[in-house]
Amino acid sequence: MDNSKSIDPIQFMEALPHGKALGMQLIELGDGTAVLGLPYDKRFVGDPETGVIHGGPISALMDTCCGASVMSHPEVMGITATIDLRIDYMRAAKPGDTIVARAECHHVTRSVAFVRAVAEDSNSNTPVATATGTFMVGKSK
Amino acid sequence: MDNSKSIDPIQFMEALPHGKALGMQLIELGDGTAVLGLPYDKRFVGDPETGVIHGGPISALMDTCCGASVMSHPEVMGITATIDLRIDYMRAAKPGDTIVARAECHHVTRSVAFVRAVAEDSNSNTPVATATGTFMVGKSK
Amino acid sequence: MDNSKSIDPIQFMEALPHGKALGMQLIELGDGTAVLGLPYDKRFVGDPETGVIHGGPISALMDTCCGASVMSHPEVMGITATIDLRIDYMRAAKPGDTIVARAECHHVTRSVAFVRAVAEDSNSNTPVATATGTFMVGKSK
Amino acid sequence: MDNSKSIDPIQFMEALPHGKALGMQLIELGDGTAVLGLPYDKRFVGDPETGVIHGGPISALMDTCCGASVMSHPEVMGITATIDLRIDYMRAAKPGDTIVARAECHHVTRSVAFVRAVAEDSNSNTPVATATGTFMVGKSK
Repeated sequence: MDNSKSIDPIQFMEALPHGKALGMQLIELGDGTAVLGLPYDKRFVGDPETGVIHGGPISALMDTCCGASVMSHPEVMGITATIDLRIDYMRAAKPGDTIVARAECHHVTRSVAFVRAVAEDSNSNTPVATATGTFMVGKSK
Repeated sequence: MDNSKSIDPIQFMEALPHGKALGMQLIELGDGTAVLGLPYDKRFVGDPETGVIHGGPISALMDTCCGASVMSHPEVMGITATIDLRIDYMRAAKPGDTIVARAECHHVTRSVAFVRAVAEDSNSNTPVATATGTFMVGKSK
Repeated sequence: MDNSKSIDPIQFMEALPHGKALGMQLIELGDGTAVLGLPYDKRFVGDPETGVIHGGPISALMDTCCGASVMSHPEVMGITATIDLRIDYMRAAKPGDTIVARAECHHVTRSVAFVRAVAEDSNSNTPVATATGTFMVGKSK
Repeated sequence: MDNSKSIDPIQFMEALPHGKALGMQLIELGDGTAVLGLPYDKRFVGDPETGVIHGGPISALMDTCCGASVMSHPEVMGITATIDLRIDYMRAAKPGDTIVARAECHHVTRSVAFVRAVAEDSNSNTPVATATGTFMVGKSK
């Protein structure tokens, strides 16, 4: 990874009020990949009977994680914006678990970055959700 | 709309801690359509320089609004869960504006409901975002 | 529509060997909208027992129709390429029917065009399929 | 793979007139994965100047390959139908090359199967396209 791409994880989250408000934690970032955690929070509950969290915070985590992976890609200059994002929800997340999202920016053209991501809880057999998206970028080379 | 589908808007939001925590307001619900508002909140900001909100809360609003439209469809029995949801982000939302999402459950098969939605701010020329998704359902007829 | 955008329907299909090979017919084109027909053909059958056609030719029709709508948009310069396309299949097409796809390029940014489309057979109550996609573009203004 | 799932590749393609008409070849099938090839054909050309094939045949290949992976999954009973399919086009396929699609049905619920696929030509560094989709299924267990 180019030195100009080294990103301070604390500064990164400071610059994302929405991520901070939800309690997202940057776990890993660099070279087109990002790992973010979202600890369980009662505010996220979508079904009060089971305590299962709503798809909304998972969408927010996936979108933020995908965007972070794009920004950390060595060929990407400056900021990025989501063009579109598809999320597939395979199953309910386990109440109480931190959700960990891993995103990979796997291809960059002159103006578009292609990203995929996976969100998991403590049961690693089946992901909670997967994401596929495209982001607008400027390219450095 | 079948009487059995009349839903109390206050009860509906009470049953959605995540929607309540974000400040979502149910504006209209019935017959396979739902309208929800999300007032501007500094917690949602994705870009501190401009005050533009992050895609995450818009995703959460879209997902909730689409799910509500499915639950209000006369042919749908009981609860629903998102299978997949695609969101297209056409432009940044105007800082300070309430985002209003309108969802329509336009087709229901034995086990899947098809939904589309639009999110707008005060500039009604171009939507902020559109959504296309499928939801798991039980069918009453 | 700008004069420079007037497109000869016969030339348009001549320039699309794939569309021609499938028998696609350009019905309408201009100002960011396109209507294309795909007459029923035994080559398209996906289920020999019912004669129902496969999703593949419908995907091809949708992709071509969406691309045509982009190229006919007054703000778009030159050629376009699909970035991503989502197709939702609501129901089987009626065997023997021509499928008619209508696409609308509803928003264009500096480098991306947003498109939606609907495919119908002779039963106009429920579409056979809908499409949502983004295309790479050059913008003229 | 359960014995009841062993599928004769020749019978499989015989049962798919559309796949046969396009020249698709079944390379591998079983246990929730499928590999199909699509040899280059002038009928597929989308851009006569370069000989690059249109997205349509790639969509058809991806849809067929994803469906085949679902049908070969040990937990799936009987036939399947596409609910929705997203295809991301990373780059133009190399004219003259056979396109090989590999699909994996990675999760099956009571009524929905989740699938992802990759399409490659002879340049294996970057896929030509990826696909993400959901299919309607009956489940055997």
